Amino acid sequence: MMAQKKMILDLDTGIDDSLAIAYALASPEVDLIGITSTYGNVVTSQAGQNSLKILELLGRTDIPVYLGFSHSSTTDHFDVMPVSQEIHGKNGIGEVELPTAKRQVEQQSAVDFMIAAARKYGDDLIIVPTGPMTNLAAALKQAPELTALVGNVTFMGGALTVPGNVTEVGEANINQDPAAANQVLRSSFNLTMVGLDVTLRTLLTKKETKLWRALGTKASVAFADIVDYYIGAYATTNSHLPGCALHDPLAVGVALDPSLVQTIGLNMKVETKAPFAARTVGDETRLNEATTNVQVAVNVDAPAYLQRFMRRLTALFAQN
Amino acid sequence: MMAQKKMILDLDTGIDDSLAIAYALASPEVDLIGITSTYGNVVTSQAGQNSLKILELLGRTDIPVYLGFSHSSTTDHFDVMPVSQEIHGKNGIGEVELPTAKRQVEQQSAVDFMIAAARKYGDDLIIVPTGPMTNLAAALKQAPELTALVGNVTFMGGALTVPGNVTEVGEANINQDPAAANQVLRSSFNLTMVGLDVTLRTLLTKKETKLWRALGTKASVAFADIVDYYIGAYATTNSHLPGCALHDPLAVGVALDPSLVQTIGLNMKVETKAPFAARTVGDETRLNEATTNVQVAVNVDAPAYLQRFMRRLTALFAQN
Repeated sequence: MMAQKKMILDLDTGIDDSLAIAYALASPEVDLIGITSTYGNVVTSQAGQNSLKILELLGRTDIPVYLGFSHSSTTDHFDVMPVSQEIHGKNGIGEVELPTAKRQVEQQSAVDFMIAAARKYGDDLIIVPTGPMTNLAAALKQAPELTALVGNVTFMGGALTVPGNVTEVGEANINQDPAAANQVLRSSFNLTMVGLDVTLRTLLTKKETKLWRALGTKASVAFADIVDYYIGAYATTNSHLPGCALHDPLAVGVALDPSLVQTIGLNMKVETKAPFAARTVGDETRLNEATTNVQVAVNVDAPAYLQRFMRRLTALFAQN
Repeated sequence: MMAQKKMILDLDTGIDDSLAIAYALASPEVDLIGITSTYGNVVTSQAGQNSLKILELLGRTDIPVYLGFSHSSTTDHFDVMPVSQEIHGKNGIGEVELPTAKRQVEQQSAVDFMIAAARKYGDDLIIVPTGPMTNLAAALKQAPELTALVGNVTFMGGALTVPGNVTEVGEANINQDPAAANQVLRSSFNLTMVGLDVTLRTLLTKKETKLWRALGTKASVAFADIVDYYIGAYATTNSHLPGCALHDPLAVGVALDPSLVQTIGLNMKVETKAPFAARTVGDETRLNEATTNVQVAVNVDAPAYLQRFMRRLTALFAQN
């Protein structure tokens, strides 16, 4: 067996975040060493609870969950946006009632865990933020050497070649904390951006959730219910798309196998001022540098990814 | 010798437009069958006169010049922007005084010429707009069959992965007439976009114009003077760039040899409403279509292009 990579998921769990957990657990190439929690689809404490519940549902109560910041780096409070509640449900997992987790979140903070893991695993560590970048930016500020230590940061967020989903230029995750995202994108992290450019091209439909439901296990039925809520919400909020976007699990997929996407190298920045706030775009002052620190996914082999996604998740759900 | 492609340049001549004329004349792969004129860097009539002067300077008084629209499809008047005058000079060619052209522009309109050429040459015709798309959009409206007739439209304009140069999202050519550009980009033309993504990476410096000046011919000295003005303006307006951008001649180069750039396929639209007007971006409603009509250049082999540019233009200038 090949050497497993270590992975931290930084999640605002969230329906597609739940699928990202499942994808990571179902992938033999990776050892999920912990989940850090952030605000976004839900408040941070709820994200932590949801991650604990999903891990328990999937029989992996060995994986620790940490809490991160409860609001952005430029605000002192966070309220869930109505559209987030519409897409993920008020409880973040499609109003499906999972049993209260038997475990608690860890005492260590998300930031301290990230830094400790980077120092321990170095180049073997992949960090996958699928929400606002507040935790990672704080870790970077506290320990600037992280950029040289961590193997790769593959994030779900941003939109380079397509419009945003909360403003014409802003994608939801980046929009929660453009300043934090700007710090991360302008840093020398080895970054891979999995944005709306590709996630709106990897869509799941009720045809697939029907297959899960037919398995009849606890996990397969729960995930079918959770994702059906998400598909229903997409039919309303994104009626031009023939399914729901696999945002966060695609980021995990790409982190483990970059060959799933076509990428372009770019030195990027994030706009922080309205009305262009949260735009992820090339930094015009670093266009002619010899190297680039971000590989931006601009196209995806959606059939290949979807086949792998279904094969892995179905196998995992069948056992739980 | 290979079969030559036919080319129409649609120019707001302009310093880099003048370089585009020179590049086309210096390229054995192409037969420049005419130049149509538009507003932008200068008013349309001045663009026509400048094209006539540059053709005469380069000994090609056989190539006809046509006048197109004098303002955008949504306005009834056009004034040259101060920044255009700063970059190109008030006369459009760096305040260099070339002799008044002996010829006149043609009686036929730019639009009628485009349509007639498309019907005559069909797939062998490449149209290269390097200004606002007003003329091409009008031709398309008058003769919708153009999209199926014309081999390729390679335009200089737009910005997909980098900020605009007149607003955060708007590039100058597209910004003059976003509605016309939107009609062209949403059409089924076989399109190649050569935008700021790549043109800000192909830069000329006084090192190169010095070589032209040393040739001592009328054309080489005039072009050295003209381009030195442009380089000087760039040093003020784009102080982060180590030279002037070869916007329009790069479009001609890519039209003749697409292997100079890395492209991504995308179905695009142009935003027409402030503050996002003129943004060239993927059309979210056509993201999952099986085919794409725009190949967007997102990276360029700048050394290869610059070498070819200098070899071709220097040879042309040496003879004139």
